[in-house]
Amino acid sequence: MGERARENAGNVGRHFADFTRRDWEQSVEGGPIRFAVVGVGGFARNRALPAIKDVAATETTVLVSRSIGESDPVVDEYGVDAVLGYDEFHDGAATESYDAVYVATPNLFHRDYAESAARYGKHVLCEKPLAASAEDAAAMVDACDDADVTLMTAYRLQFEPAARRTREIIREGCIGRPVQIHSNFSTKLLDNFGPGHWRLDPDVAGGGALLDIGVYPLNTSRFLLGEDPVAVQGATNSWDPAFDRVDEHAAFQLAFPDGVVASCSTTFNGQPNSQLQIVGTEGSISIDSPYGDVPQEIVVECGDMRMEYTGPPVDDVVEEVAYFANHILTDRRPEPDGRDGLADLQAAEAVYESAETGERIEIDYL
Amino acid sequence: MGERARENAGNVGRHFADFTRRDWEQSVEGGPIRFAVVGVGGFARNRALPAIKDVAATETTVLVSRSIGESDPVVDEYGVDAVLGYDEFHDGAATESYDAVYVATPNLFHRDYAESAARYGKHVLCEKPLAASAEDAAAMVDACDDADVTLMTAYRLQFEPAARRTREIIREGCIGRPVQIHSNFSTKLLDNFGPGHWRLDPDVAGGGALLDIGVYPLNTSRFLLGEDPVAVQGATNSWDPAFDRVDEHAAFQLAFPDGVVASCSTTFNGQPNSQLQIVGTEGSISIDSPYGDVPQEIVVECGDMRMEYTGPPVDDVVEEVAYFANHILTDRRPEPDGRDGLADLQAAEAVYESAETGERIEIDYL
Repeated sequence: MGERARENAGNVGRHFADFTRRDWEQSVEGGPIRFAVVGVGGFARNRALPAIKDVAATETTVLVSRSIGESDPVVDEYGVDAVLGYDEFHDGAATESYDAVYVATPNLFHRDYAESAARYGKHVLCEKPLAASAEDAAAMVDACDDADVTLMTAYRLQFEPAARRTREIIREGCIGRPVQIHSNFSTKLLDNFGPGHWRLDPDVAGGGALLDIGVYPLNTSRFLLGEDPVAVQGATNSWDPAFDRVDEHAAFQLAFPDGVVASCSTTFNGQPNSQLQIVGTEGSISIDSPYGDVPQEIVVECGDMRMEYTGPPVDDVVEEVAYFANHILTDRRPEPDGRDGLADLQAAEAVYESAETGERIEIDYL
Repeated sequence: MGERARENAGNVGRHFADFTRRDWEQSVEGGPIRFAVVGVGGFARNRALPAIKDVAATETTVLVSRSIGESDPVVDEYGVDAVLGYDEFHDGAATESYDAVYVATPNLFHRDYAESAARYGKHVLCEKPLAASAEDAAAMVDACDDADVTLMTAYRLQFEPAARRTREIIREGCIGRPVQIHSNFSTKLLDNFGPGHWRLDPDVAGGGALLDIGVYPLNTSRFLLGEDPVAVQGATNSWDPAFDRVDEHAAFQLAFPDGVVASCSTTFNGQPNSQLQIVGTEGSISIDSPYGDVPQEIVVECGDMRMEYTGPPVDDVVEEVAYFANHILTDRRPEPDGRDGLADLQAAEAVYESAETGERIEIDYL
């Protein structure tokens, strides 16, 4: 036990030594990948557009928006070739000017943009959740498969070094066999967006806290274990009238095929906070603020050994955009593909069903 | 928001300033309470007997055990008046020599000792879980009520200052309305006890990890909220052949009447660890290692304010024994009474039923 714990601890140290390495990166020729960014709201302006500019292999050449005009400063800042309205985009305007789309619209519209992009032979990087329903997500997967274009779900968490290194040390057996995962993600939605926001409209968002931010504990659990839950149990509720149409709070259990159970919770109306812990038979890993802007301290325990890491921060949207481009240019399928996004939607819909019926719901993946 | 957060933070500081105070203690006359300690195993020797000696208002006068003789060093060390076999105890030997019993036997035997004690008019302090089944626990409650003796469940966690101060600041509204609780408790049972241990026998223990250590997150959630869960969902499993008769791992959700959901998990075969977090609408509280020998760091967040506390440690068994004696001598009913222990057994049995059936189980408290 002492010997094994020391060996495990040594392996952990080896993985953390080169914390921010891009284990997925291959040398490329060609490029850049020219993006049409669809939906020029806060996320696009603050994160996606700067990231695309920052990545050598990508550039933004087209903006697609209902609301911006040629005089919007963002047009000059990124030197785009075209600014399109939504109908123009769907009608195939300026298709010679871009190779891929970054879909950053409200969830309901993801499907239409992805299907149009596929129709014009464009690759798709789409914000999470992949769609407002599993049905829509499945249609997106089919459309992109049929058109032979890449569909990637923008799970930026998967490009956080904390998550990638944690997965490596789990796979290496440093914490023994994983037993349980605990994770939560809470935010104060109304402080960030106000009461008229589309995330409060189930027709546009597809769901509430569970679908919007509960997808982080959900996807991260699947990512770390490399498995999909076979059954879920859950509970949702809403107290504040602002959330009378979507779940304000959600708590759910994911049962994985090898017996691991992940206990997750999320809320739109709680002190901003996130936590992730993986308990194994021989060790444990805890990450403070895994879903915040920058993961904070990582604590790894192997038997009696306790190690703390705080790695250098990365811009996870930069990592995600670089990953997307690198996979297109090397003709590889991204790991967070459309199927990954679809599986989360199926799991989330099963949690809603469990919350409604009180029953454990087994998932039959499409 | 900023103003309220500052006010909340100030209230937190006030509660933590006198961290280890015994908010429950009243001045007493009379005593000491003379204990018969029933079941002289590791817990009694290492924790209960020293604690009873340490508390001015209590002393050990009788030992009840199958195995110790007059020559056992523990007899001299505590200067007891009598050493009884189990049958002698049940038959009413030396009843003039003790006022209360501390039941520290395996769970299955709690009921018989409590019933005998009640029959002889003795107060009962009984280790957790209160019994091997809710049925047994209910019988103990009735027997002690009928005999008008005190029955207290030995939830030492309730006497940890970290738990008591946390409950105070929740009640004061420092974190707004509680939304979610996350808690886990994992141990390596086989490292501590070996494969022949009674906790691996469901007939003696009444259950596995859920009943033995899952009761900590369960009882603590109830303690902090001052409410009982109305419904539970859960999953249990076992992988290691050593645990083929009891649950090796358990994960469960508790739904409280005001809408709080507690997500809890526990295992007999995981890296030793415990965590507790309460997320509220205006703040959160996290306790590292709440169920370990000494709670470690407490982190309280109120809006943008973050405070860390590490209070002076107490011996929680000393606190518990002192509380028990103080309540008997002032003729007050202890808060962790028999009903408290019974409620946990009903909730645990509901979790087992949910794990078996896959359904959310509503609890009809006795």
